[in-house]
Order: sequence, then C-alpha cells, then structure tokens
Amino acid sequence: MIKVCPERSRRVVVIGGGTGTYTVLMGLKEYPLDLTAIVSTLDSGGSSGRLRDEFGVLPPGDVRKCLLALSNLPLEKTSLRQLFEYRFNNGTGLRGHSFGNLLLTALTTTTGREDLAIAEAAKILDVKGQVLPVTLSKSNLCVRLEDGTIIKGESNIDIRRIRPKLKISDVFLDPAVRIYPSARKAILNADLIILGPGDLYTSVIPNLLVAGVSRAIAGSKGKLVYICNLMTKHGETDEFSASDFAREIMRYLNRGKKKLELVLVNNNFDVPQSVSKRYEREHSFPVEADVKTLQKLGVKVIAKPLAAAGQLWRHDSQKLAKILHSLL
Amino acid sequence: MIKVCPERSRRVVVIGGGTGTYTVLMGLKEYPLDLTAIVSTLDSGGSSGRLRDEFGVLPPGDVRKCLLALSNLPLEKTSLRQLFEYRFNNGTGLRGHSFGNLLLTALTTTTGREDLAIAEAAKILDVKGQVLPVTLSKSNLCVRLEDGTIIKGESNIDIRRIRPKLKISDVFLDPAVRIYPSARKAILNADLIILGPGDLYTSVIPNLLVAGVSRAIAGSKGKLVYICNLMTKHGETDEFSASDFAREIMRYLNRGKKKLELVLVNNNFDVPQSVSKRYEREHSFPVEADVKTLQKLGVKVIAKPLAAAGQLWRHDSQKLAKILHSLL
Repeated sequence: MIKVCPERSRRVVVIGGGTGTYTVLMGLKEYPLDLTAIVSTLDSGGSSGRLRDEFGVLPPGDVRKCLLALSNLPLEKTSLRQLFEYRFNNGTGLRGHSFGNLLLTALTTTTGREDLAIAEAAKILDVKGQVLPVTLSKSNLCVRLEDGTIIKGESNIDIRRIRPKLKISDVFLDPAVRIYPSARKAILNADLIILGPGDLYTSVIPNLLVAGVSRAIAGSKGKLVYICNLMTKHGETDEFSASDFAREIMRYLNRGKKKLELVLVNNNFDVPQSVSKRYEREHSFPVEADVKTLQKLGVKVIAKPLAAAGQLWRHDSQKLAKILHSLL
Repeated sequence: MIKVCPERSRRVVVIGGGTGTYTVLMGLKEYPLDLTAIVSTLDSGGSSGRLRDEFGVLPPGDVRKCLLALSNLPLEKTSLRQLFEYRFNNGTGLRGHSFGNLLLTALTTTTGREDLAIAEAAKILDVKGQVLPVTLSKSNLCVRLEDGTIIKGESNIDIRRIRPKLKISDVFLDPAVRIYPSARKAILNADLIILGPGDLYTSVIPNLLVAGVSRAIAGSKGKLVYICNLMTKHGETDEFSASDFAREIMRYLNRGKKKLELVLVNNNFDVPQSVSKRYEREHSFPVEADVKTLQKLGVKVIAKPLAAAGQLWRHDSQKLAKILHSLL
C-alpha cells in the first residue's frame, strides 16, 4: 500500500509595501499557498503620517493595502472591503483619512500593540495568510543625495521637492531598528522570497534596512526573486534600467550575503499613448529591460510581457502569480 | 396524519433609541423572534451631531447602539464589536468620534443612502433582525417650556442649561418629517410594539412626533407596551411618577388613537447607596410606581423588580425579555 502524505503548503513571503505588493498578493492568493506579506511601516505621509504623529502608532498605510489584498470576505460583506479603502473627503480633521487606517489605529489603541491590531484586523477581514510589519519600532527613512544633503521622512522623499534632480546615493534609517521576530521567522521558513515591485527607495529597500532582515533572507533556503518596476520614478529612479534597480537591491542585500537568484522584468513597452502621457507629465518612463547587463550581475532573468493595460501601467497580477508559482 | 405547520416567528418592534432600547434588544435577541428596532435619528449632540453638521448624514448614534445590541458576530470577530463602540480620545478632529459613527458615515457616503448604509452595517455586524431609522429626513427636536421659551436641538434639551427648573410643556419637530416606509410596514405587521425605556422627551417621544408613526401604531394589531424609566432625569422628567411618564406617552400617542395596553414599572427601590449618590448628584431619583393612578388611566400594569444592580441603575435585560416574551 502506498501512503500519500499530504504535502504542506509552500511558504511564500512577499516583502514590500505599496501597490506593487498588493498586485503580487492579489495574484498569489488564488493559489494554495501559505502567504506572508512583510511590509514597511516607515510611511510618514498623508493619513498614515498624521495618525503616526497624533496617536504614536505605526503608519498603517501599507499594512492596510496588504490586508485588503489577502481579504477573503464573503460577497455580502463586500461593503466592509470597500469601507476599508474609503477615504473621508470632508469633516474637520477627518478629511483625507482612510477608514482602514482609522480602523487599524483604533485597534492598536484597544489591543495595545501594533502586531495584535494587525492580527485582529486580519480576522475581521477574513484574511488568507498573514501580514506582518517589518519592525514594531518607529523610525524615519532618510536619504543622502549625491551632494551630501540628507532628506528625512518617507513623504519628503516620496514626492521630492528638495533638489529632485540630484541622485540618491544612500538610504538609511534613523534610528536603527530591529526586525519583528515573526517576520524573521517567516523569512527563515520561506520557500520563496519575493522583493518588489514597488518604489525602490521608499517601499522595497526600507525593509532591507531594518536590522536582521538581510540576515534572515541570507539564512533562508527560499529562492530570492526581485520583480523589477515597470516605470522609473522622478526624484528616485530617473533613467534607471532594470539592472540599475537590481544592482541597488543587491547592494542593500549584500550586507546579508544572500544571492539574488532571479529578476523578473517586463519586456512589453506598448504603453497606450493616453497612459504614457500621464506618466510623462510626472517624468516617469518605462524601465529598460537590459537583460544582458542583468545577466552579467550573475542573476537569472525572466523577461516577459508583465504589464496590464488600464488607467495606469501596472503589473498584471495573474501573469506575475503564474510565473512565481512555477518557481516553487 | 397531522400536519404541523412551522409557526412564523413573532414580530416584535422596539421603538426608542438610547441605552434603554439597547437593553431591551439585548434581552429579546436570545428568543426566536423577528426583531425590528426603530430608532430616533434626531440626535444633535457629540460625535453624531458633528457628523450630521459636517457630512449632512443622519446622526448615527442611536442606530449604532441598536446594531450593536443585535450583532451576532462570532467570537473571533469580537474586536469588530469592540471597535464599533470605540471612541477616539486623541487626534485633531478625531477626538470624541465613535468609530461606529464613522463607519456609518462612510457607508452613507459610499452607498449614497442612510437606510442602505444601516443595512450594510447590519451585514458587517451579523445583525439578527433589523434596525430602521424612524425617518430618513433631517429635523430638529424642539421643546416649549412652561414660560413659552423654545429650545431647539436634542443636545440642548438633553443636558439643559437653559432654565432647567422650568417644565417642558410641549415637544415638536422642526421641520415636520414623515415616517420611513419600512418602519411603517414593520409597525403595521408587529405582534408586539414596545416603547421605551429611555429619555422621555429626547429618545422615546421624538419617534412619536414623526408623521405617520402614531397612525401606524394605531393601525397595527400588535399589543402596545410602554416600559417606564427607572429614574427621573433633571430638566426633563423631574418628580415624574410612572403615571406621569405614561400620561405623556399617551398624550403623544393619542394623535393616532391607539390604546396603550400595558405599562411595565419597576417596584424595586433598593438602589445601592453608592449608585444612588451618583444619581442624586445629577438630581436624578427613582420613579415612583404609582400603580393605582396608572390603572385609572386605563392601562394594565406589571409592577416587578426590573432593575439590575451595577455601576448604574439600569433595567435587567433578561428580566425585561422574559416578561415581554410572555406577552406574545
């Protein structure tokens, strides 16, 4: 008699924060995987930043997006999902606040801990998998420009008004903070670790700056994949090709000596004109898929059409998920 | 062969708004009943009032309490229940706002209608039964004092700073508003209609002032019961006995010619000293159970110990529910 052992679900960890991570999670949640999203909590702008300043809680913005991505609420509770994304557009003091951020803030106050608040929100939203903050400590993202100027605060870097034409030469956290133990454990046990896509210096790399993250990645047997952005971002990655993105990731990873195994790059540049015009206005352009240079960096490359046409030029979550799942 | 037809659930309508209605609903929801709470939406104070002023939505305070009372969320979602009651205690513009009120406000904006917002919130909270606003129109509660002074706005009446020693001679709505059709239907189809307990002029009677409510009550075959308050309220029902309460209810009901059938009064006056001291400081005293005077008004009376000892002197929801259920 042959005994068939039920295989354990494969463990996938997605590290990032913003819309890019949301897209990856939306695709992967259709597969029978054990999913963990590890998100940056250094966001200092908008609703998140105000809540951080006024309540002293971790900025909930990226946590919120990941919870939404993994939410499996039944159809009759769709409105709770919509609420979570809702932003108040009037009301003294309420304007601009995202309802989801308020929910996370209230839960942080009632549970007394950020990680418990996220776990409770996950229950409320019937989340499949888990969302973990990369750290429970508060810190500020800082960049050093090529002329030595230091800019402090994610929101000041994200939409840069200070010398936007100068390149970023270095990114660091002030103060230094340590990894959240559950995030460390998830990384160590992962079968696949996915970095990006997302704003290089304000979404993806901030996670690698948290003490213990690179080391945990290095200590994991999981494959390490980077999904490169589709578009450059003004003031952050102007004129960057895919290899420039990957090189920066490797630079901040190397502190942990982990080899980046694979880079996913988009090779479809048929951006609809109406869409590309919007990006051009923001000095944002398609990222060149310089596959040969990438290969010289010692990484495998998958170059495929990865974009989905829409109002914006974004990754197609199904295409990404199919490729990522095939790596397991 | 005998065919046993499954009996339909008995339909119970509770009309009121505040904590009293919450208590009644908490008790009744343990019985297999078809429950409807009809609540006043004229609240103009606190978080509710601010949301009304800033968003133009109906004040959600009492709706919130009734939704909570009827919520049947599973244990793992207890935190959503707690959230609904949570009040922000810092944050510019957020301080004092109840999370539940914000949720209802956001849903009103996303659904575009107050009744749909309440229905969506009910789904989110796994509400057993339904909560209906008495009207969808905005109005202000007004009282005329015995010297002719008119006070406008529920919050100004509720905690009265204007001539608190003068009696209220009349209550009215400005502008006049009509009953919400679903509330009318629920009243017409009820087997039992329960008024109160609750602040006489600011919670219970306001419902009767809405055009169509008294008429619907009169048109219903359901028994009509009034649950009298345990304590008087300064500036509103000073020195009122149970018959004074009932007389006022009858006065505003009589516009619809419906006979008040039964009054439930408490006859346990063993208020713990620590509790009675708190009430005395607010010039609040136990309501005298003047059963004979009540009977002269032509109503049946059930006089029983109905209070539950606690931090406050409140109705015991289980005792109330047991009596109310026995009337069906």
